[in-house]
Amino acid sequence: MSAEPRRSIATVCLSGTLEDKLIAAAGAGFDGIEVFEPDLVAAPWSPRELAERCADLGLSIDLYQPFRDLDSTDAERFARNLRRLDRKFDVMAELGVDTVLVCSSVSPDAVGSPDRLAEQLAVAASRAGERGLRIAYEALAWGAHVSTWDASWDVVRAVDSPALGLCLDSFHVLSRAGDPAGFAAVPGEKLFFLQLADAPQLHMDVLQWSRHHRLFPGQGAFDLPGFVAAVLATGYAGPWSLEVFNDVFRQSDPGRTAVDAMRSLRWLQEALAAGSPSSGLAAPPPAPPLSGWSFVELGVDGISGPQLASVLRTLGFAHTGQHRSKPVQLWEQGAARVLLNDAVVRPAAAGVAAVTALGLESADPSLSAARAEALKAPVLPRTRGAAEADLSTVAAPDGTQILFTRTGPDGWPADFLATGETAEDGVGVTGVDHVGLTQPFDSFDEAALFYRAVLGLEPQTTTEVAAPFGLVRTRAVTDAARSVRLALSVSALRRGGWSPGVPEPQYVALATDDLVATAVALRAAGAPLLALPENYADDLDARFDLDPALLAAIREHGLMYEEDASGAYLHLATEVLGDRVFVEFVQRLRGYDGYGTLDAPVRMAAHRRARTRDLAVR
Amino acid sequence: MSAEPRRSIATVCLSGTLEDKLIAAAGAGFDGIEVFEPDLVAAPWSPRELAERCADLGLSIDLYQPFRDLDSTDAERFARNLRRLDRKFDVMAELGVDTVLVCSSVSPDAVGSPDRLAEQLAVAASRAGERGLRIAYEALAWGAHVSTWDASWDVVRAVDSPALGLCLDSFHVLSRAGDPAGFAAVPGEKLFFLQLADAPQLHMDVLQWSRHHRLFPGQGAFDLPGFVAAVLATGYAGPWSLEVFNDVFRQSDPGRTAVDAMRSLRWLQEALAAGSPSSGLAAPPPAPPLSGWSFVELGVDGISGPQLASVLRTLGFAHTGQHRSKPVQLWEQGAARVLLNDAVVRPAAAGVAAVTALGLESADPSLSAARAEALKAPVLPRTRGAAEADLSTVAAPDGTQILFTRTGPDGWPADFLATGETAEDGVGVTGVDHVGLTQPFDSFDEAALFYRAVLGLEPQTTTEVAAPFGLVRTRAVTDAARSVRLALSVSALRRGGWSPGVPEPQYVALATDDLVATAVALRAAGAPLLALPENYADDLDARFDLDPALLAAIREHGLMYEEDASGAYLHLATEVLGDRVFVEFVQRLRGYDGYGTLDAPVRMAAHRRARTRDLAVR
Repeated sequence: MSAEPRRSIATVCLSGTLEDKLIAAAGAGFDGIEVFEPDLVAAPWSPRELAERCADLGLSIDLYQPFRDLDSTDAERFARNLRRLDRKFDVMAELGVDTVLVCSSVSPDAVGSPDRLAEQLAVAASRAGERGLRIAYEALAWGAHVSTWDASWDVVRAVDSPALGLCLDSFHVLSRAGDPAGFAAVPGEKLFFLQLADAPQLHMDVLQWSRHHRLFPGQGAFDLPGFVAAVLATGYAGPWSLEVFNDVFRQSDPGRTAVDAMRSLRWLQEALAAGSPSSGLAAPPPAPPLSGWSFVELGVDGISGPQLASVLRTLGFAHTGQHRSKPVQLWEQGAARVLLNDAVVRPAAAGVAAVTALGLESADPSLSAARAEALKAPVLPRTRGAAEADLSTVAAPDGTQILFTRTGPDGWPADFLATGETAEDGVGVTGVDHVGLTQPFDSFDEAALFYRAVLGLEPQTTTEVAAPFGLVRTRAVTDAARSVRLALSVSALRRGGWSPGVPEPQYVALATDDLVATAVALRAAGAPLLALPENYADDLDARFDLDPALLAAIREHGLMYEEDASGAYLHLATEVLGDRVFVEFVQRLRGYDGYGTLDAPVRMAAHRRARTRDLAVR
Repeated sequence: MSAEPRRSIATVCLSGTLEDKLIAAAGAGFDGIEVFEPDLVAAPWSPRELAERCADLGLSIDLYQPFRDLDSTDAERFARNLRRLDRKFDVMAELGVDTVLVCSSVSPDAVGSPDRLAEQLAVAASRAGERGLRIAYEALAWGAHVSTWDASWDVVRAVDSPALGLCLDSFHVLSRAGDPAGFAAVPGEKLFFLQLADAPQLHMDVLQWSRHHRLFPGQGAFDLPGFVAAVLATGYAGPWSLEVFNDVFRQSDPGRTAVDAMRSLRWLQEALAAGSPSSGLAAPPPAPPLSGWSFVELGVDGISGPQLASVLRTLGFAHTGQHRSKPVQLWEQGAARVLLNDAVVRPAAAGVAAVTALGLESADPSLSAARAEALKAPVLPRTRGAAEADLSTVAAPDGTQILFTRTGPDGWPADFLATGETAEDGVGVTGVDHVGLTQPFDSFDEAALFYRAVLGLEPQTTTEVAAPFGLVRTRAVTDAARSVRLALSVSALRRGGWSPGVPEPQYVALATDDLVATAVALRAAGAPLLALPENYADDLDARFDLDPALLAAIREHGLMYEEDASGAYLHLATEVLGDRVFVEFVQRLRGYDGYGTLDAPVRMAAHRRARTRDLAVR
């Protein structure tokens, strides 16, 4: 048995007009929507026409919301509120939806007395019942008197009407550290609706937190699986419905957002199925373990290709293979493999170089691909020549191709003919440590969930640094064994005309066990190492009690050094190659588990200087 | 006597590399800078070279900052911190700066005992004194043990060293509702440094508030004049130095930000001079009263000009004048005057129409212009023919020209030759109510201060609405008599590829005393009125107890209706004319003082639909 829940999304989650939102929700495979009242008010369709439009798209209307500030200490105002409710019941009848969300009041005239509140809700429930409708009552976390789910349940229980039940919203409960264990006291039939939202843990006014920073499940810090498990345990069998207010999603392509939203519910469903096999919930194929990097592919063109090839040689790489049928070169050093691919279609300017594909070693590539597809990752066609490996490829949110591979005699390297060169005299690189990918502004949270859900990599803490041209956030995703690490970064604000670093460069970080020796070898080979200011080393000297020999090497070679609770990190960057990629050489000391992000502002300023110099030279 | 304070700016206020920041600060006329340590660390210059560079630019270095977490309960760590301090003293000696900012510690090992803290600060002060340097100690609002200015003063007083004094930062004091009246207990010579920042009143973690949302004086909600008056009363004679951490400024053109910053100090200085004439502070010429709109100019081209002219006729305007020497038409209705100007140089596409200039009636146009210049508004050249009025023109942050005018026989209308048409049969327009200007993302706060400082218009509360393609903020500026109102709006996030409304349209709101009659006349004249959804009127009917005749008119003509504590508002929009301007007709009821922003989402969705339809028709 493999059950699928009904999946809904509130129209407020998506950008655009209601017309745009319906198409996006249907396109992503949602079963239903919550109609957010302002979306309907601004729409050109009558409620009946909207119902028809939804039916055409295969969407049910599961909830009408919100109805605010129903109760009142002022009898006349309560009467006006009931009149307003009646008008909305008229709208619901035309829409064909039977449940309305009523939020706890935030008004100065909200009723504080539990008995009086129950009386007023009983009146409203009775009117709803007479029309065959239901009221789902929800405690807003900032409600004037009812601000916890327990308090909303007390009212619903006191009214004891079949037309009045609860709406549980994960944000309102978890933002106030409410305990879902208490849901066990609620009979499933009194739970009328379930709204889901995740959020980062922020210390701010809860209303602002809710209105601006909600996320889809799996993108934030809340325990959504635990929350939903407690809800399902009551016997709730209604829709799982997303209600996410997020400043970025409000202005992003709703088609993409809806897919991201659907992925979040599938991720959540899998987490529940794993935690409770008796739930019978369907789940995608499990994520096969990833054991490391098979390659990093750089897309190049006729100008940047030869440039990068000559730089790779100074970085200790050897050109070991040539693809059988495509203009792709294989370069190797230690376990690190870099592909230079001149066959990637890009509409960009001449001389570009960018990370275009990541080869990840999977225990079962075809299962990895099947899982990716089940989690709505776009599966890409891959032209394949005779006797070439079938590489399962999906697209990450930033367009980077992810290839699930098996390296070995029968795997993808067989597609390459040996050149005869061997990678013996490197600079000490042992493999790929991580790849740093600058994300498009709209897809930072989407990317964290993509890598978590599709690849099984866990998102780490978000770090924010003040870079020369604006704040930059970095969030890594990695597996428990740290065999695959990606550092995702994004500008805190979408960049405008002033910032010269658009897009900020991506990078490939190569591991070494002795960065000083690697730096000496790189310098000897004429590698284009990034020059760092003396002030940086002076500051390190002031802050840390570094070994004098190490400090001298830092000064000589432009190394960077960081410490945190996990350990210490030595790293070294090249100048930007082509237009948007550079290489780092990194050494992790004493179990360091970070990504050198605190040094990013110094590195970015140095890159900017080097580029300004290049432009001046041209 | 008219004294000028020394004016400084912390490099952290400005975007770019340190090289960019120095040029911006010097260009805006600052006397000095605070060197923010991370900017120096990332810079290519040695401290000595930086000092030379600053001297070349006419900038002094007034402060080195910040030095964090000096004190420690761990003796060994305190020794390391002193070593770090010594190294920074070396840097300061090279820079030629004598004062370092030491922040109260936020570290888990921060010293809680006042006596022990004083002992450790005494040691540090003694080292500073030996080198001829000074420590300015500042209470961070989130300091572990010292988080109020009073607490920092207790420590400084206890140490009683000539090398230890206070740094007062308006954010840290005012964010915690500290009382500047207490500064009276501090001798001026113990006040080593003054840092200034404004901020909006937000309910959030004070560290996040400080790091992301500070503003320049006059842009936020703090009483900066009162704060500085209390500081000056101690005898403080050091620099007025800005330290503003702001996400938007961090990524904006630093040249513009520096001018905005300088304007904020001049505004502040004037407020102080006004409050305390005995201070002897210099002040710009006072703002002459503005008494209303003389005209609104729309820039048009050969395609949009004739289109707008024909639309203006349906809106009840008459073409009453033609400029003597330029392709500018004067259109009039009641006291409202609209210029169609085909001589504005714009690099845009064909068919554009935009608000390009605002004529404001000044009691003394040349004094208005002199004040604008003193407050660093860009004064624009204006080509003038023989016998034409000399119009003093400055550019607002969004590029809109502001003309200070006197309307009358000897004023600007004399530049227009009468066409013979008269504006008798209008649609009831009495004048211009307000103009709505969408601001560039980077200049929303700059604009509020510009209109406040240069024109003497007071910024009102910021309203945020969820529009179809992202959040939009609106903040009006107006004089006490409400004779000039501007509604400034901006997207909460810089718009990306999805949003079709880039740029959102501007509008001219025309006043009427009877919007229903005006709507009837507009419809009869064939005006391109914006169609609103029936759902909107249904929702009004549910929410308000409207007169049935009014509700019928709302339905018939697509009127919009709002209520707030100040009164009620009826308004009506045209479709977008050209590419980015529309006209509203508005009636203020019962003293309504707002701008109809709550209706903006419905209006925007309707505009989007009308435009999509236009595109489909083409």
